[in-house]
Amino acid sequence: MSPDYLKELLLAVKEGGVSIDEGVATLKKLPYEDIGCARIDHHRQLRQGMPEVVFGEGKSVSQIRQIITAMSGRGNNILVTRLDDEKAKQLLAHFPVASYHADGRCLTLEFQPLAECGKGTILVVSAGTSDLGVASEALVTARFLGNRVEHIYDVGVAGIHRLLAQQEQLSTARVLIVVAGMEGALPSVVGGLVDVPVIAVPTSVGYGASFGGIAALLGMLNSCAAGVTVVNIDNGFGAACAASLINRG
Amino acid sequence: MSPDYLKELLLAVKEGGVSIDEGVATLKKLPYEDIGCARIDHHRQLRQGMPEVVFGEGKSVSQIRQIITAMSGRGNNILVTRLDDEKAKQLLAHFPVASYHADGRCLTLEFQPLAECGKGTILVVSAGTSDLGVASEALVTARFLGNRVEHIYDVGVAGIHRLLAQQEQLSTARVLIVVAGMEGALPSVVGGLVDVPVIAVPTSVGYGASFGGIAALLGMLNSCAAGVTVVNIDNGFGAACAASLINRG
Amino acid sequence: MSPDYLKELLLAVKEGGVSIDEGVATLKKLPYEDIGCARIDHHRQLRQGMPEVVFGEGKSVSQIRQIITAMSGRGNNILVTRLDDEKAKQLLAHFPVASYHADGRCLTLEFQPLAECGKGTILVVSAGTSDLGVASEALVTARFLGNRVEHIYDVGVAGIHRLLAQQEQLSTARVLIVVAGMEGALPSVVGGLVDVPVIAVPTSVGYGASFGGIAALLGMLNSCAAGVTVVNIDNGFGAACAASLINRG
Amino acid sequence: MSPDYLKELLLAVKEGGVSIDEGVATLKKLPYEDIGCARIDHHRQLRQGMPEVVFGEGKSVSQIRQIITAMSGRGNNILVTRLDDEKAKQLLAHFPVASYHADGRCLTLEFQPLAECGKGTILVVSAGTSDLGVASEALVTARFLGNRVEHIYDVGVAGIHRLLAQQEQLSTARVLIVVAGMEGALPSVVGGLVDVPVIAVPTSVGYGASFGGIAALLGMLNSCAAGVTVVNIDNGFGAACAASLINRG
Amino acid sequence: MSPDYLKELLLAVKEGGVSIDEGVATLKKLPYEDIGCARIDHHRQLRQGMPEVVFGEGKSVSQIRQIITAMSGRGNNILVTRLDDEKAKQLLAHFPVASYHADGRCLTLEFQPLAECGKGTILVVSAGTSDLGVASEALVTARFLGNRVEHIYDVGVAGIHRLLAQQEQLSTARVLIVVAGMEGALPSVVGGLVDVPVIAVPTSVGYGASFGGIAALLGMLNSCAAGVTVVNIDNGFGAACAASLINRG
Amino acid sequence: MSPDYLKELLLAVKEGGVSIDEGVATLKKLPYEDIGCARIDHHRQLRQGMPEVVFGEGKSVSQIRQIITAMSGRGNNILVTRLDDEKAKQLLAHFPVASYHADGRCLTLEFQPLAECGKGTILVVSAGTSDLGVASEALVTARFLGNRVEHIYDVGVAGIHRLLAQQEQLSTARVLIVVAGMEGALPSVVGGLVDVPVIAVPTSVGYGASFGGIAALLGMLNSCAAGVTVVNIDNGFGAACAASLINRG
Amino acid sequence: MSPDYLKELLLAVKEGGVSIDEGVATLKKLPYEDIGCARIDHHRQLRQGMPEVVFGEGKSVSQIRQIITAMSGRGNNILVTRLDDEKAKQLLAHFPVASYHADGRCLTLEFQPLAECGKGTILVVSAGTSDLGVASEALVTARFLGNRVEHIYDVGVAGIHRLLAQQEQLSTARVLIVVAGMEGALPSVVGGLVDVPVIAVPTSVGYGASFGGIAALLGMLNSCAAGVTVVNIDNGFGAACAASLINRG
Amino acid sequence: MSPDYLKELLLAVKEGGVSIDEGVATLKKLPYEDIGCARIDHHRQLRQGMPEVVFGEGKSVSQIRQIITAMSGRGNNILVTRLDDEKAKQLLAHFPVASYHADGRCLTLEFQPLAECGKGTILVVSAGTSDLGVASEALVTARFLGNRVEHIYDVGVAGIHRLLAQQEQLSTARVLIVVAGMEGALPSVVGGLVDVPVIAVPTSVGYGASFGGIAALLGMLNSCAAGVTVVNIDNGFGAACAASLINRG
Repeated sequence: MSPDYLKELLLAVKEGGVSIDEGVATLKKLPYEDIGCARIDHHRQLRQGMPEVVFGEGKSVSQIRQIITAMSGRGNNILVTRLDDEKAKQLLAHFPVASYHADGRCLTLEFQPLAECGKGTILVVSAGTSDLGVASEALVTARFLGNRVEHIYDVGVAGIHRLLAQQEQLSTARVLIVVAGMEGALPSVVGGLVDVPVIAVPTSVGYGASFGGIAALLGMLNSCAAGVTVVNIDNGFGAACAASLINRG
Repeated sequence: MSPDYLKELLLAVKEGGVSIDEGVATLKKLPYEDIGCARIDHHRQLRQGMPEVVFGEGKSVSQIRQIITAMSGRGNNILVTRLDDEKAKQLLAHFPVASYHADGRCLTLEFQPLAECGKGTILVVSAGTSDLGVASEALVTARFLGNRVEHIYDVGVAGIHRLLAQQEQLSTARVLIVVAGMEGALPSVVGGLVDVPVIAVPTSVGYGASFGGIAALLGMLNSCAAGVTVVNIDNGFGAACAASLINRG
Repeated sequence: MSPDYLKELLLAVKEGGVSIDEGVATLKKLPYEDIGCARIDHHRQLRQGMPEVVFGEGKSVSQIRQIITAMSGRGNNILVTRLDDEKAKQLLAHFPVASYHADGRCLTLEFQPLAECGKGTILVVSAGTSDLGVASEALVTARFLGNRVEHIYDVGVAGIHRLLAQQEQLSTARVLIVVAGMEGALPSVVGGLVDVPVIAVPTSVGYGASFGGIAALLGMLNSCAAGVTVVNIDNGFGAACAASLINRG
Repeated sequence: MSPDYLKELLLAVKEGGVSIDEGVATLKKLPYEDIGCARIDHHRQLRQGMPEVVFGEGKSVSQIRQIITAMSGRGNNILVTRLDDEKAKQLLAHFPVASYHADGRCLTLEFQPLAECGKGTILVVSAGTSDLGVASEALVTARFLGNRVEHIYDVGVAGIHRLLAQQEQLSTARVLIVVAGMEGALPSVVGGLVDVPVIAVPTSVGYGASFGGIAALLGMLNSCAAGVTVVNIDNGFGAACAASLINRG
Repeated sequence: MSPDYLKELLLAVKEGGVSIDEGVATLKKLPYEDIGCARIDHHRQLRQGMPEVVFGEGKSVSQIRQIITAMSGRGNNILVTRLDDEKAKQLLAHFPVASYHADGRCLTLEFQPLAECGKGTILVVSAGTSDLGVASEALVTARFLGNRVEHIYDVGVAGIHRLLAQQEQLSTARVLIVVAGMEGALPSVVGGLVDVPVIAVPTSVGYGASFGGIAALLGMLNSCAAGVTVVNIDNGFGAACAASLINRG
Repeated sequence: MSPDYLKELLLAVKEGGVSIDEGVATLKKLPYEDIGCARIDHHRQLRQGMPEVVFGEGKSVSQIRQIITAMSGRGNNILVTRLDDEKAKQLLAHFPVASYHADGRCLTLEFQPLAECGKGTILVVSAGTSDLGVASEALVTARFLGNRVEHIYDVGVAGIHRLLAQQEQLSTARVLIVVAGMEGALPSVVGGLVDVPVIAVPTSVGYGASFGGIAALLGMLNSCAAGVTVVNIDNGFGAACAASLINRG
Repeated sequence: MSPDYLKELLLAVKEGGVSIDEGVATLKKLPYEDIGCARIDHHRQLRQGMPEVVFGEGKSVSQIRQIITAMSGRGNNILVTRLDDEKAKQLLAHFPVASYHADGRCLTLEFQPLAECGKGTILVVSAGTSDLGVASEALVTARFLGNRVEHIYDVGVAGIHRLLAQQEQLSTARVLIVVAGMEGALPSVVGGLVDVPVIAVPTSVGYGASFGGIAALLGMLNSCAAGVTVVNIDNGFGAACAASLINRG
Repeated sequence: MSPDYLKELLLAVKEGGVSIDEGVATLKKLPYEDIGCARIDHHRQLRQGMPEVVFGEGKSVSQIRQIITAMSGRGNNILVTRLDDEKAKQLLAHFPVASYHADGRCLTLEFQPLAECGKGTILVVSAGTSDLGVASEALVTARFLGNRVEHIYDVGVAGIHRLLAQQEQLSTARVLIVVAGMEGALPSVVGGLVDVPVIAVPTSVGYGASFGGIAALLGMLNSCAAGVTVVNIDNGFGAACAASLINRG
């Protein structure tokens, strides 16, 4: 609703090109108009010409196939997240261009080369072998959104020297995604070693009083390292989206 | 523990300039040594020549005065957070250079001009009048850390058009900090309107089943807008630290 | 226990058509009978001549079949809720008049045309595709209880303009049921756009810290929009009952 | 932003009474103005000519006095909620027109007679003497919003016959607000006795495992009586807003 | 609504002494009528000639004084629970017959000798010195309701032999009330030593993860000793009521 | 048991004043003994000649068969709780004397007639059809422990008149067990109608915010009816044990 | 202690094979006895000749003074925990031998030199300055129980190198007590650096989602470092007791 | 990275057997290697020549087989925890040296005799038959780590005399591990009977309000017996690691 547009409209009314009733009708719809066109789904980074994302969980193979077919008409690259092996297998049979990332349970369909949008590297750091799935979802998503990505595996805080040995690699990243379950302490330690934003991802790994990731989530929210922000439990995708926005900035 | 350093050491051992026992002693201490130098306190952004931060809560006026006196010797600017009116009054009497930001309960001592470090603007958006305190802590901190800052007040989701009317200002920020209590829905809506990182700060404002900010915290963690990350309840300071790191990147 | 029925009974006693002992026996059973027929399953809106409801979850096909057979004797319409595909299939084979609403997991048996009881339209608004099941249960129930119903799909708060584009339709409803999972913010936004009662239904959709709908439930209870009331998680049926009572008022 | 207002404005522009630049300026401010005056505190039912509401908790006497002074210029009636005795005393001294409802901790300033907007009666039912404060907030608010109101006190479920003795009064209401602490069972029982909407308000009354109203809240959300909806703990104001919307419908 | 009453009524209708319309009116009111007479307050054991109970918490001295004055007209004994020292002092000055039990925060007014109603002894067992207040409330209440009472103090499970040394006294009680905070294990141990009902009372004593009595409450609900039932946290009064009903049976 | 006492006792034995058998009898009453022999499992009411109980959940058919075989040597009656259909079938094939109570998931083996131990009737009241399983476990257990038992089904609080119609039966019981899920309000209402102990059993029936029985549990703990005590969620067995102890007293 | 054993013993006493004194000695070892005398309170390490402990919280100065006076008759050293400044001041005036440890809120009265009972050093490591109180309680208690103690302050995980710089001191301890609030990660890191038992103490330090120490508690229970055990929130005393038992072993 | 190894390496460099570049390469890898071999899974007690541990849960048979094969090259003994029957069967077929401990769900491969490292006995005490699995995990782990172990079964607190009968065995242990579900009271009672460290392990055994072990966990954290420390729910392995560290000290 720019001033220029309003000026033109009022001029037209004044000059009679637009009747008063037409003017009223136009002005009444204004706030809505610049709206309707845009978003097919909730992922704001997914405009025309940009990659599209399908949340696979709870959707049937047939539903996903239809969505992919509809989307692929625009020639955009497509990412399907939270997709189990069985469904992936059937989709791979249907879409030869697709490739499945089993660890992160993601399917990508790259109809065109991924455009590099990020200015630096997104580094994913994960604590234990059981955090690999979530870390992998973050990695695949971040790469798909046009970022250079790296990964440091298996550097839990109970063996702190292994982490310190990677300090050089830590210091070269522009954004870090730190994935950890159990007590969720890794982002606090990493946050104390670097000068860039750290996005913490709690995982539901653990047993007993880990309560499906609550212990890790609370640990991260209460991190004593300033500069750490947190996403939902197991939300590797969300962390990658946020990291990507930061990396483009 | 760079290769060059190791090479020199081994050469010295080989050539006898360093005895084998001395070499063993040196190598044993290696991981510690290249360490000790660095961090005096937990605030990584607070290096020599950088501003210093004191967490005021739970500290007596006398303790804070000693800390400020000690720190001010280095000529650095100092920020004291979580400081109530009463303590502030006494510190203002003691340090003429200090100024108190009552809304955000912060005291700043600027012995030198604040260096501008950020590339863009950090915009703080807050939902209700009762979120102003936390928003103000974020604003003061972000400015103190060298960022240009702006603020949009009182744009709760139950009067959505007020927020939409600010869309232009929203779109000019490089990072957003969105502060909200009660149901914590504002970051989700804002996240859908911009293409830059959004840091959500739940506040303890509310009553009944808001449970001191838990409702808002959960709302933000479950945000359907990708790109939103979350900090602890009422943690305006932490949000500003993270935003500042992003804005420098 | 209508006055007419009592009058007839007393007349019959007076005139000798019903003996005093028979009269006593009949009157003694009255409170039961009144119950036996009308309140078989606690749904007060289901009186003589009104539709009847069976809660399908945890009942076997055989049990449901018996209940339907017993109820259908009275010629009333019947609604079975929380019924999965498998059971529905068997019941459809048995009751040709039945039709199954797979999305909402409801079976309806309409032995007579649905009487229209509501004064206006009940509009069901749902946030994401995964909230469709609960929204559908609300829709089918509301229609079954004699209301005109409409539905707006897929208008989550992270794409707020899609919702605003529907403002005209929002403003024509007499009651709104707003269904949302994850952060549960939609009722707050909708509540700010309309002047009629809004019934919020949290859904168990989400993962991680959504805790099976608790995040959405808390978000809705803490809504900053006055006039929003809340029902239990996933309780589309209950929301429709409440909306129907409002729409008849 | 009524069509009539727009029509007048455009006509004035067309006829030259308002210049195009003035027209642009006016239109640009429209969304703000519409807000600035009407939605000062998120209460959508409070338009021009309608009562205004101030949430008193956490505001100083001086702040409230300023807000009232600003609002009263428009001649609207004003309701201040969550106001303790001490503040009320000072405000009463300042505004002779004000009257304070100590039980419900509400202050009302009626500059003009309350317009009756509701079609029927809103009946507030409360369980114990300690629920009176919340019940009273609901009563005062409902009356202030233009409804006829009645109240049944002290009819807890452990003395069920006292409630049943009031069944006639229960049956004459158009909407019920049922307030209860402890186990929160009253709305379930009342819901089974009437055919109109029941809004349940859990109170924080109780001790031990009542957890500040959580027990009552859960009891109400799990009510076996269909047609019961719930608002936040102690939220008598919100219940009255919702009941008022229903009563106008 | 006895058969005899119905018979008489119908006979009267048949014989013309009662008109049909009168009969209808009478029958319509029947379920209500035999109701209204009974319960003045929630304490069912408090009939005419029986002791009366006032819950003191949250009531002003003036309110309690009025209630006592009103009640004492009937000559019944009165118990005021949850009454702090300050209020008690004022009431003692007003009612010479009153005596205050400081440990249990109860005031009793015995206008007539306490009638003994129980068949055996109620034994109150408490774990630590900090559980004495709750134990004392139970003791005073049980005695007031007409029971012989005894008390064993300070027999926590970490010094199990002290408890075992009291086994003879344990075995002579007809009902036991076992009061414990912290881990709440005492009722489980006691329950294994006796053959009579054990009522467990969790107290809010403890710190850290005792969560105001939740730890003790959960411990008691999960007791491995069959025959243990539980009341609310700190609810010594409720335990005594239940024990008294058992002791009278 | 002071040394002096022992000394005297031994002296008396030595000198013949106390026979060896008397000495043994005296010493036998020291705690150890009447212990080691008696308690094979944690159920104190299960002495020699008394029924025995096996907790079936988590035990294999083979384990249960062995335990039954061992126990049956003593000729005692045996109750197996928490036993699913499949296991029951196999055990029935093995033990012809056994009979399975499918609703309550209990198996009983009555090698001798059940001795009646209770003085009155235990009445089990249940709210909805889905609470029948837990009610049935209570019924079977109570009968097995030697009590007369009765049952009132399907009297939820949302249809309060059905409950009131049973008031006569309610008043004849010596102990009541009230079983309810969802909001758990039934025990409060029943507790207000009777003058005998009420044991409340929350069930895990419900969905959404019933949280597997927590809502019902909290509702019961916060009951406004004095004299209500509570057992663990779904613990029909425990309720029957406690009721049986009360009924024997 | 079978009847046979008792019979034999008594027979032997009667026949002179066992003297009366031997008989008494044998019978004295039956559990009761070596019990009754010893445990005045719940602290098992506090036998005759050993230090005594008084839990100060919730006790009046007068009560504590009486307890100390009673205890001091035995000449034992006394420790009073959880004692605030005000009470301490009064007790110091009364007992000249007493000294107050303000940080740890402990008062000690050493009537005799502390006996050294531990084999090695107990090292207390604390994360932040706000954990000092709990750490100090642990230090004072451990020293009082006869252990050599050391302390490393202010080594939070966000500045990991400061901790690593102390590795030598860490490696010389026989037991470690690690005190931390907020995310509670320090015990995990320390546990990975040493080969001795680590007792973790969560503190209630933190704000927002630290929930009074729950975040730290969960972090410690879920520690990925084996060999870490946990005590209750803020329970420095309990940690010192456990560490002392280990150090004596 | 033992000194001896370093000495040899430097000597080889000095003497020319290892070139400087080779030396640099070796040293650069040291921190990794030291990790690669020893800390494959975060268990610090597993150095060269010491047993190795694999966490079996969530790993496929094939993955575990590879890890075992890799590890077994070093000749170390190996423990696989959390391994179900089905996987164990396949691994037993592959590794003849393996033996499976079904109760504790552990597989051990002893390529060399277990070295005895502990000074005394670790006694595992468990409350009910359903705690046997966790107790068994603790037993197998403790034995595997080189400790003498004993076990007392089935001594729940509701039959306290059974526990007391074992007091002699309790008093001979150097460390106790006490395993209990439901109310988790056993460690408190045991802690009052012994003078050595007690490690409490809550188990997820129980139903209803045991909440998967939370009730037991809270009970243990709030133990009134000093000297009790706690590990995570069902964490028999962790308890054994801690006990083993204590027993070696």
